[in-house]
Amino acid sequence: MKISYKIWLDHHGKAFGDGPYELLRRVDKTKSLHQAAHQMGMAYSKAWSLIRTIEQRLGFPLLERKKGGASGGGSRVTPEAKELMNLYGRFRKDVKDSIEKIYRKHFGNSKSPHSPFS
Amino acid sequence: MKISYKIWLDHHGKAFGDGPYELLRRVDKTKSLHQAAHQMGMAYSKAWSLIRTIEQRLGFPLLERKKGGASGGGSRVTPEAKELMNLYGRFRKDVKDSIEKIYRKHFGNSKSPHSPFS
Repeated sequence: MKISYKIWLDHHGKAFGDGPYELLRRVDKTKSLHQAAHQMGMAYSKAWSLIRTIEQRLGFPLLERKKGGASGGGSRVTPEAKELMNLYGRFRKDVKDSIEKIYRKHFGNSKSPHSPFS
Repeated sequence: MKISYKIWLDHHGKAFGDGPYELLRRVDKTKSLHQAAHQMGMAYSKAWSLIRTIEQRLGFPLLERKKGGASGGGSRVTPEAKELMNLYGRFRKDVKDSIEKIYRKHFGNSKSPHSPFS
């Protein structure tokens, strides 16, 4: 047996979670929403509408779009989005560690060796 | 902004979570899966198949059915299910407290008074 969970920030609806966090991390690395979406097996249109929805819910921009130029443009993560990513990353790590610890505390010491709780 | 999450025990698939926990608590009180399901606005057939699925995944019975008699039968929570409910209830309480604490730690002290993180 193991523990599973989904966790997200809610602000006028589902506002931020592991999916958007991973997407933004990849945009930050590749400087391209196209590439980030592609790496995650996500359609560009879906990634774009996800970003737009989150921006509306949180009330600040996540991406700056650079147009044209030799590189053909691209996307850059805004400072506000960076702050959110940093906060969320640390928050997420603490939640993971804590849930695993609490799970072991309650389900890791079952008396029966055949118990599904063990 | 607030934090939202779903958490469940996984054992050959989704095996136990808040919904089944609440359903079993109500069966334990009412001695009736019919009444428990009704109280939760759940179809009896759905409640029954949920219980069956969980029993298969966990490998032990959750309910004992009493047939007939003056009271027209009913359901009783098995000792194994009681143990699971007790474990899960304490686990769930710890998770709730911990996630709230971690959320406050990371998102409760934003510098900007207008930040959605506050």
